[in-house]
Amino acid sequence: MGAELQAYEITHAPYYLPVGNEIQLYEAAYARRLPVLLKGPTGCGKTRFIEFMAHRLGVPLITLACNEDMTTSDLVGRFLLDESGTVWHDGPLTEAVRYGGICYLDEVVEARQDTTVIIHPLTDSRRILPLDKKGEQLIAHPDFQLVMSYNPGYQSHSKDMKPSTRQRFVALEFNYPRADAEALIVATEASTDLQLCRRLVDIAERSRALKSHGLGEGASTRALIYAAQLIEDGVTPLESCEMALIHPLSDDPDMIAALRAVVHAHF
Amino acid sequence: MGAELQAYEITHAPYYLPVGNEIQLYEAAYARRLPVLLKGPTGCGKTRFIEFMAHRLGVPLITLACNEDMTTSDLVGRFLLDESGTVWHDGPLTEAVRYGGICYLDEVVEARQDTTVIIHPLTDSRRILPLDKKGEQLIAHPDFQLVMSYNPGYQSHSKDMKPSTRQRFVALEFNYPRADAEALIVATEASTDLQLCRRLVDIAERSRALKSHGLGEGASTRALIYAAQLIEDGVTPLESCEMALIHPLSDDPDMIAALRAVVHAHF
Amino acid sequence: MGAELQAYEITHAPYYLPVGNEIQLYEAAYARRLPVLLKGPTGCGKTRFIEFMAHRLGVPLITLACNEDMTTSDLVGRFLLDESGTVWHDGPLTEAVRYGGICYLDEVVEARQDTTVIIHPLTDSRRILPLDKKGEQLIAHPDFQLVMSYNPGYQSHSKDMKPSTRQRFVALEFNYPRADAEALIVATEASTDLQLCRRLVDIAERSRALKSHGLGEGASTRALIYAAQLIEDGVTPLESCEMALIHPLSDDPDMIAALRAVVHAHF
Amino acid sequence: MGAELQAYEITHAPYYLPVGNEIQLYEAAYARRLPVLLKGPTGCGKTRFIEFMAHRLGVPLITLACNEDMTTSDLVGRFLLDESGTVWHDGPLTEAVRYGGICYLDEVVEARQDTTVIIHPLTDSRRILPLDKKGEQLIAHPDFQLVMSYNPGYQSHSKDMKPSTRQRFVALEFNYPRADAEALIVATEASTDLQLCRRLVDIAERSRALKSHGLGEGASTRALIYAAQLIEDGVTPLESCEMALIHPLSDDPDMIAALRAVVHAHF
Amino acid sequence: MGAELQAYEITHAPYYLPVGNEIQLYEAAYARRLPVLLKGPTGCGKTRFIEFMAHRLGVPLITLACNEDMTTSDLVGRFLLDESGTVWHDGPLTEAVRYGGICYLDEVVEARQDTTVIIHPLTDSRRILPLDKKGEQLIAHPDFQLVMSYNPGYQSHSKDMKPSTRQRFVALEFNYPRADAEALIVATEASTDLQLCRRLVDIAERSRALKSHGLGEGASTRALIYAAQLIEDGVTPLESCEMALIHPLSDDPDMIAALRAVVHAHF
Amino acid sequence: MGAELQAYEITHAPYYLPVGNEIQLYEAAYARRLPVLLKGPTGCGKTRFIEFMAHRLGVPLITLACNEDMTTSDLVGRFLLDESGTVWHDGPLTEAVRYGGICYLDEVVEARQDTTVIIHPLTDSRRILPLDKKGEQLIAHPDFQLVMSYNPGYQSHSKDMKPSTRQRFVALEFNYPRADAEALIVATEASTDLQLCRRLVDIAERSRALKSHGLGEGASTRALIYAAQLIEDGVTPLESCEMALIHPLSDDPDMIAALRAVVHAHF
Repeated sequence: MGAELQAYEITHAPYYLPVGNEIQLYEAAYARRLPVLLKGPTGCGKTRFIEFMAHRLGVPLITLACNEDMTTSDLVGRFLLDESGTVWHDGPLTEAVRYGGICYLDEVVEARQDTTVIIHPLTDSRRILPLDKKGEQLIAHPDFQLVMSYNPGYQSHSKDMKPSTRQRFVALEFNYPRADAEALIVATEASTDLQLCRRLVDIAERSRALKSHGLGEGASTRALIYAAQLIEDGVTPLESCEMALIHPLSDDPDMIAALRAVVHAHF
Repeated sequence: MGAELQAYEITHAPYYLPVGNEIQLYEAAYARRLPVLLKGPTGCGKTRFIEFMAHRLGVPLITLACNEDMTTSDLVGRFLLDESGTVWHDGPLTEAVRYGGICYLDEVVEARQDTTVIIHPLTDSRRILPLDKKGEQLIAHPDFQLVMSYNPGYQSHSKDMKPSTRQRFVALEFNYPRADAEALIVATEASTDLQLCRRLVDIAERSRALKSHGLGEGASTRALIYAAQLIEDGVTPLESCEMALIHPLSDDPDMIAALRAVVHAHF
Repeated sequence: MGAELQAYEITHAPYYLPVGNEIQLYEAAYARRLPVLLKGPTGCGKTRFIEFMAHRLGVPLITLACNEDMTTSDLVGRFLLDESGTVWHDGPLTEAVRYGGICYLDEVVEARQDTTVIIHPLTDSRRILPLDKKGEQLIAHPDFQLVMSYNPGYQSHSKDMKPSTRQRFVALEFNYPRADAEALIVATEASTDLQLCRRLVDIAERSRALKSHGLGEGASTRALIYAAQLIEDGVTPLESCEMALIHPLSDDPDMIAALRAVVHAHF
Repeated sequence: MGAELQAYEITHAPYYLPVGNEIQLYEAAYARRLPVLLKGPTGCGKTRFIEFMAHRLGVPLITLACNEDMTTSDLVGRFLLDESGTVWHDGPLTEAVRYGGICYLDEVVEARQDTTVIIHPLTDSRRILPLDKKGEQLIAHPDFQLVMSYNPGYQSHSKDMKPSTRQRFVALEFNYPRADAEALIVATEASTDLQLCRRLVDIAERSRALKSHGLGEGASTRALIYAAQLIEDGVTPLESCEMALIHPLSDDPDMIAALRAVVHAHF
Repeated sequence: MGAELQAYEITHAPYYLPVGNEIQLYEAAYARRLPVLLKGPTGCGKTRFIEFMAHRLGVPLITLACNEDMTTSDLVGRFLLDESGTVWHDGPLTEAVRYGGICYLDEVVEARQDTTVIIHPLTDSRRILPLDKKGEQLIAHPDFQLVMSYNPGYQSHSKDMKPSTRQRFVALEFNYPRADAEALIVATEASTDLQLCRRLVDIAERSRALKSHGLGEGASTRALIYAAQLIEDGVTPLESCEMALIHPLSDDPDMIAALRAVVHAHF
Repeated sequence: MGAELQAYEITHAPYYLPVGNEIQLYEAAYARRLPVLLKGPTGCGKTRFIEFMAHRLGVPLITLACNEDMTTSDLVGRFLLDESGTVWHDGPLTEAVRYGGICYLDEVVEARQDTTVIIHPLTDSRRILPLDKKGEQLIAHPDFQLVMSYNPGYQSHSKDMKPSTRQRFVALEFNYPRADAEALIVATEASTDLQLCRRLVDIAERSRALKSHGLGEGASTRALIYAAQLIEDGVTPLESCEMALIHPLSDDPDMIAALRAVVHAHF
């Protein structure tokens, strides 16, 4: 790894419990430098997985939290004013392309469809990034790989990725871990009792079942860790669940009552 | 507390009357530096509470009144022109992340959904703020915490927070205090008679009951303090209520007449 | 009053005929520096009233005609380029906050809802203006007061003020003066015959009654003064009313005919 | 008239044939410096009238063709970069306010509603123009007058002027001149035969009658002058009418046939 | 012709076959410097005609391909930064107005309605161009003429020209040439056999007849020239028609089949 | 080829298997420098074809991935700030026009309709590019050719190209290769077994048949190469197809099940 992207190195191995053979599948995709799409619900571990893989493969990880304000210039670079006039500054995507590393576009459906079109020449056999404003055609470093994540649960058609963009990727599907694995993850992350975490996971699974009954999304693994941490610190289980598993999920009085009934059945 | 954020220190203890054990719950969340969401109606004391907690915990408080104009640059920072060219200036969020402190996004639903996506890497275990434009990955100061407030009563779907953002927070729900506590707060803030304040609180509760009959929102605790202050200064109770509890709530002639009837029944 | 806002001093007492005890109510609100909302129809005297009060209280008056282009920077200030780089320039709101004075946001519903959110920290007990771009938290001068006006007759929901903004104000309701007072105001302003002005006021009241029959708004006191001035200068009453009371109110042939019939019945 | 606006002086008397006592009415409004609104259809002589009046009164005339791109800065002025930093440059409205003259906003409904709000403080008794960006309150020169024109025939509600803006003006209604006057104007402007012009005016009046049958607008006086000039130069009357009175009015084959039938009945 | 616009001189006579007396009509309009509107379908020769006329009249031709991004500044000019600060640069319309020449706005309906309003003062008897940003009123050079083209076949109401703009022009209507003339044009432009071109013209006429059956537009004269050139270069007639007369017209399988049937009936 | 565009030279012959006589047809169009439109579905080889042709013809290839942010300036050039003020920098289209080469607008329907209007003067007999901002009329280099690609399968009317733009091009239609040719391409690109590739192609053809049953687009040739590469590297065929042929195509559970059934029938 060159010195240029040292700040983006993952220096400590992140904790990650595999749920299948996703590690091997990702390694096969990386070996060919195929662009990878991580699909899955909020807080199920997509970001942790890519950090884990970047550390395992020993490559820097440049993360971009996508948003609708993000312009091509934010990805690719821009001219800035210097003592001697305008000088080109590489954007984070360009840095990853130039010096090698994984460029991770988090929540890519938040970006505007047309912004993501600029990655097309990077995701076919050419592996080039045209810097139109600078008049440079950058050929990707051999270690460069493009990874994007998104949550297919939001069914907003206006924000769907274009088929011509999606088809440039191979996709790995993520989901919440199985109950015992999820309880182990929560117990490990919150350094708390496994038995308690099993009860929390059971609550989460019931909230996820409410998704087809009007709840935007069920409780995430991350929210379970929050609840377990609060309980570990002496907050009562009921109050911890109110804070971490009920009010972050909904403002609707009926839905709050339903979630509260689930919690009360467990504590 | 370092010198950098001294201007944001709360030097005098704000008056705050707890309505439950919200102080302990907040302290538990702060101990883990969990991001906190304060939910509750207009003028019920959310902002006062966070000032109270910042003073109690001895950390600076950086408040951002969210609006739809607010860009990522307003939060994170921007390049400004100097004698020697463009120089980076940290935004308020970056300052809180760099030097430690509570960053409080007030009325966060006013911000554009995609702008708030930039806080994602700050609200999971990474606790990093990618400064894309500057090419820096800022690791959060141990004292940094993110807090956001919003009013769930506005049912505008286009402005709802995304589940993937909400789930990164633990939430505390606020409401107007119970009648006796609210009267005590109003009497203390306006330095006036408790008996009078009980009558004002009773008017407020009736206006809040009108919310399901077409009133946008009932009278806030803050509006009650305004009314009490005007009465204390010699304005008649009827005129004070007209100014503070009727006309700020509605322009609709029927609703004004209904509110006026409530006031006349009390004075 | 400091030298900084001398240009905003009202040096001559404006003519203002009170219609109730609005002067005393305003003085009570000013004594507590409560934010004030002036509600009322076009041209009924809201702006004249606030000029009158600023003169009476001896404080400078900074007026901002709100529009949808108005950004936070227009209110708060911006960096401008100087010989030595970018230099901060206070906006008019910041000037009023810093040096003390009444900041009057005229036709505030024209401003974008989210722009007005920046006044929230100024309108609660904190009385601070966060200058995010500059990294300064400005504490309001003891003489600073915020006043806004709007016309509740426009029923455009998209432009209504948010309850969480409105409730931060005490409100004074204005309307056209009673007939005899209005005739006196018109006669005084146009230096003309009171009897003539009574007839003009009678025409205005009939046009205001047409408001619920499709007319956007009835004739304002200001329009009556225009008509009286033209008559005083020798234009015939019929032509003066055509110019000042008919064509400015409507382009619709039926409505013009109705208004013309009203005028012909009086002259 | 000062030297500053010499470029805006109308040095030669424009040809203008009065259709009523509009000259006297305008002079009365100007004497009081009342803001004036000129209402009337396309090409009926509004612009010519205001040029005529500016010459008659001996004041400069600053014309602004309104459009939706027009920002407050285009009217009021802006900071420009100079050798020594940013320097303020007055916009055309500010120049008229500062040095005295008629500022004429042509086709004002093209401007955005909120842009026109900035003229409010200029159009009541204050007669001030707040230059917010510069921090100056400009008091209008005694010779300053504001005039706006628009075509009430376009019934687009989204572009209607706000009542609170309209009521700040006195209005003069224009229409096409009576047939004999219009023929005289066309003959004078095109230096051609009056008898021919009578026939052209008759065609125009029939096209104006088609307006309620789907034609956007009937032929204007200006279009008649074009047709008369072409005929005077040897183009056949039929071809001249095709070019000036038919194809500029419509692309619809049925409407073109109807207009052509009218022309053929006259030549 | 002055030196300033030499780059815009048409040095060689373009090939143009008149279809009627459009040359004489245009010359009459130019003699009076009347603004001219060229109406007609895609690729029928409007642009070629105006080049032909500019060469014939010996005046420079400044062409502007209109688009919705085109701002007033793109037409009129802007301030650019120079060693000594901001310096004004004339836009192409301003150059034509200042030094004399035909300014040709191609596909004017692509421009935003309000942008075209700035040409109003140029298209009445004043013939001035107000450079608001520069504070200059430019009087048009005696050789200046404004010409615009558009295709009335696109029935998008949102893009129709405003009547008040259209009526400032005299209009010439263009259409595809008669069959024998069109075959002669195609044969001349492609240096190929007239008999072949007759067959191509016949195909084009049939495709134009499909316009009322769902085809956006029939084959243009330009497309016929393409087809003739490909055949002349040895591509088979069927393949040439596929490339030039079928696939550029439609993506719809049924329409492609219909067009293919027409071609197969001819070759 | 001049030195200016050396970076855009295709130095190695790309692998391309012709599916018809598209090479000869393209050469005929290039001989006349006719603008060419490549129509066809995602990942069927359009980009590879144009690289192949640029190499074969020995001309540089400047690729522009179109997006809705792309402005005229991104294509044509802009003024940048230098030590001595603003200096013009050619955009990529201008470079191709000035020095000669193929300018390839990839996914042109992503660009805004009005942006593409600027290519009109380049695509008729004039072959000029007006650089309005610079005041230059650039005559195209003899080697310049314009090529655009798009996918007609997206039926979004708002993004269709305008007939007046399309008709300026000759069009070549692309589709997925015939089964045996496609299998050969996949086997060659992935250096793997032809028999395996036949099975993958068969899966792809069945997924393409699902397009009329709700699938956005069937599997592309590129996706087949991905799957073949993963299998070649030891990933199981089922997992490889999940990653490359199922999850990139759809998030819909029913569609995923249908695609999975197709895969299971083959492996």
